[in-house]
Amino acid sequence: MNTYDQIIQLALERGFYFPSSELYADASAGFWEYGPNGVKIKNKFLDLWRRELVRRDNMLEIDGSQIMSKSVFSASGHLSNFTDPVVKCKKCFSSFRADKLIQEVAKIEVPERLANELVDNLIKEHNIVCPLCKGNLSNAERFNMMFRVEIGPNHDEAYLRPETCQSIFVDFSRIYKVSRGKLPLGIAQVGKSFRNEISPRQGLLRLREFYQAEIEIFCNPSKLDELTKFEEVKDTILRIYDGHTIEISVQEALDKKILPNKLVGYYLALLVEFFEKTGIDRKRTRLRRLSDDEKAFYSTIAFDFEVDTSIGWLELVACNYRSDYDLKSHSITSKTNLEVMDGDIKVLPHVFELSLGVDRCIYSIIEHSYYIDRESDDRSVLKLKPYLAPIHAGVLPLLRKPEFKEKSMKLLNLIQKDFDVFYDEAGSIGRRYRRLEEIGTPFAFTIDHQTLEDDTVTVRYRDSMSQERISIDNVSSFLFTNVYTFERLPSSKAQYLPK
Amino acid sequence: MNTYDQIIQLALERGFYFPSSELYADASAGFWEYGPNGVKIKNKFLDLWRRELVRRDNMLEIDGSQIMSKSVFSASGHLSNFTDPVVKCKKCFSSFRADKLIQEVAKIEVPERLANELVDNLIKEHNIVCPLCKGNLSNAERFNMMFRVEIGPNHDEAYLRPETCQSIFVDFSRIYKVSRGKLPLGIAQVGKSFRNEISPRQGLLRLREFYQAEIEIFCNPSKLDELTKFEEVKDTILRIYDGHTIEISVQEALDKKILPNKLVGYYLALLVEFFEKTGIDRKRTRLRRLSDDEKAFYSTIAFDFEVDTSIGWLELVACNYRSDYDLKSHSITSKTNLEVMDGDIKVLPHVFELSLGVDRCIYSIIEHSYYIDRESDDRSVLKLKPYLAPIHAGVLPLLRKPEFKEKSMKLLNLIQKDFDVFYDEAGSIGRRYRRLEEIGTPFAFTIDHQTLEDDTVTVRYRDSMSQERISIDNVSSFLFTNVYTFERLPSSKAQYLPK
Repeated sequence: MNTYDQIIQLALERGFYFPSSELYADASAGFWEYGPNGVKIKNKFLDLWRRELVRRDNMLEIDGSQIMSKSVFSASGHLSNFTDPVVKCKKCFSSFRADKLIQEVAKIEVPERLANELVDNLIKEHNIVCPLCKGNLSNAERFNMMFRVEIGPNHDEAYLRPETCQSIFVDFSRIYKVSRGKLPLGIAQVGKSFRNEISPRQGLLRLREFYQAEIEIFCNPSKLDELTKFEEVKDTILRIYDGHTIEISVQEALDKKILPNKLVGYYLALLVEFFEKTGIDRKRTRLRRLSDDEKAFYSTIAFDFEVDTSIGWLELVACNYRSDYDLKSHSITSKTNLEVMDGDIKVLPHVFELSLGVDRCIYSIIEHSYYIDRESDDRSVLKLKPYLAPIHAGVLPLLRKPEFKEKSMKLLNLIQKDFDVFYDEAGSIGRRYRRLEEIGTPFAFTIDHQTLEDDTVTVRYRDSMSQERISIDNVSSFLFTNVYTFERLPSSKAQYLPK
Repeated sequence: MNTYDQIIQLALERGFYFPSSELYADASAGFWEYGPNGVKIKNKFLDLWRRELVRRDNMLEIDGSQIMSKSVFSASGHLSNFTDPVVKCKKCFSSFRADKLIQEVAKIEVPERLANELVDNLIKEHNIVCPLCKGNLSNAERFNMMFRVEIGPNHDEAYLRPETCQSIFVDFSRIYKVSRGKLPLGIAQVGKSFRNEISPRQGLLRLREFYQAEIEIFCNPSKLDELTKFEEVKDTILRIYDGHTIEISVQEALDKKILPNKLVGYYLALLVEFFEKTGIDRKRTRLRRLSDDEKAFYSTIAFDFEVDTSIGWLELVACNYRSDYDLKSHSITSKTNLEVMDGDIKVLPHVFELSLGVDRCIYSIIEHSYYIDRESDDRSVLKLKPYLAPIHAGVLPLLRKPEFKEKSMKLLNLIQKDFDVFYDEAGSIGRRYRRLEEIGTPFAFTIDHQTLEDDTVTVRYRDSMSQERISIDNVSSFLFTNVYTFERLPSSKAQYLPK
């Protein structure tokens, strides 16, 4: 079994994630649910994102509604531009996303925004037929990926947002005013977005309903190189890909014009420093500079933060310099002046965004944390950062006897509201350790004979499997110290505080 | 201005919440956004809910997709039953929710689930006409509140869920299995639900898109009185309303048959103990027993947890004993056996639910925290619990001079990733205190002349306005101690741990 399938199996069997509406035959592809372990790792990942990006940079976070009015998406361009090419089989009437189909069958790279005629040419050139019934394919048509809903008894037209950032653009002027904002100002949002993909597959990697964590940095375009906080990150090392990968400091990348300005450099550095804390192997990440035919329609400079996985390089964060595309469009369509004061000068801010796909990040973190320990019975382990582990600690009575259970409950009562703990009395102690390691639990506390005498327990470390004894009364402070370890990492030059 | 309008004004002016898509004329009613202060109080409220209900009771939390297949809602009954009565004006063609219209015009209580004929009779009896143009009204029709969406190029029919619990029911058997569950088992979920209300008004109180935090407790119906953990809460005092309000311990309410069984009593007690930590005045809350024509179509025993607000009693949590309605329906429709093992016996679990409306809770917390301090310049204050405050602390340099700013930055750098802090150097120190108090900030640290000499700052308390000096190096531990105070409350008998 390959790694991707192993992760899916783990996800299904241990409650990380699984398909939605799975009791029913009419369940559509592209909808997944987070199970108990998945919810916990997702929420902890988002807490880390808030800590290392939102709070670190004093950004503001909003939470907007997912259904937005039609005008929003007329202005944003999604109603006319947010399409994929679809081809239908003339025999069995199945539909396929044309660019992906060509890519799979002809084994060639197909840019995402290819015109219909070029798609048709490629299909002819490579003799591509329906993969299900070998029937001939129709010419390509554009399929709009917006989900339409109708509101109220008059059936007013509205849409599920295809990206969370539209709420941020529409709300910008109110937020700026009531928060007494100053440029540059980051506004962040976590939430669901919806894209009616033609034929999604691949679990969490291409969903019709998915989580984004987006950050839009509003800035004065004439001050992109006036950013004093740039000094904090100038020595941070980025891995930039443009045909091949180089490791280079932000300052040097600026000097060599690989990066356009300090503002973009600063936020890319923050992003990279954040990811170093997720447990994703930084040697398997890169910032890929996008070519013109790969960029979204609103973007002038674009980098994808990508991670190497068992199924290839995966885009986790789209970093787009959107210029004033969005505020200008909303300004025109709504007939509202969205300029703000920057000191004494009126300016329509430009936007640089860090648009992060949460579900793909969760998949990547799990994959990069997963290993089979060949030295110890081929145990399977997720070496998750303690602060991202779904379960922080197991509480395990050595024997299934009332006095062991009683001590276990005493310990649980001390820690269970502050930490995610799992009580397990079923099976051999070795099997119970294995079950905890498999979902990334960093610590296990065992109640044994000595506990009955002196109120100490053993704490076992997931990675080293070493053990030591501590007093039950010290378990809570042990966990506070050992779970929340946002340590300074060697490759990052920013100041992180010891706890 | 009445209290409700004052809260709305505060919400709009200080970024708690505001209407969605507000730049556009085609924005529909019933969609609101959380601004920066609103997001923070909402997220902290949900953290408290997780701490005091989910983790306290070892529940499992999932996060399911919001779009679900048609079969889910055929089984749940929503496609046929989830309707409101609508009447249209024959002259101006406006639509109104009939029961609410009658209630407002005739000033009588109208039960939520009244048949169309009875609605028509009431409209005739009270001579009700269109409130906009005085035109005659049509007969009542049923309006289904489900939002329909179409998926993929074949336009497969699907719906936005009207309640988060449907994901829990559909996922139950997988979750039970992979988590090695035992009855009773609570499964929780926070997420958006969608109801196509006919004519929503009232800000956060009746939304078309809203947050629920639902808990479904799966139980063996023959063991509802076998719950050892009931002992933990038997002395907890409930305020139960059934024509008039009584204060009674859970045990006594059971003995007097006011509560049906220990399981229901235990979870109502947990709910009440949770709400005591939110800052909502317990003397202005009640558990109202619902009559048969008020109950939802799936419910056999129902209590509403209600709170008294400036616009009347508001339902915050629906507590429904849903019996096996849901699992049985999904079992039949999906042709899947959803029975599980409870010990040696196969059982189709019954469900007791605590279905909480998050947005209404946020409104109620703000309203109950809001006061005008007549003794101190009529300052307006939100006396929020420190752990629910959007901003934990202000950092205020007394003067706008570089040396004061430098010390402020030193302090910020020590606390800003762990706490929500706001740096403010604009205006007099008094005005800056007022702005912080108005959004509930419990602490303000002021950098003054003495700070430059000995690295101490003043800490000012929001409620007493008293001040004391502490060292900058101790501010972080001051905040850890004083923000996370989940203290034991006198009315609750459960064991809460000091931190």
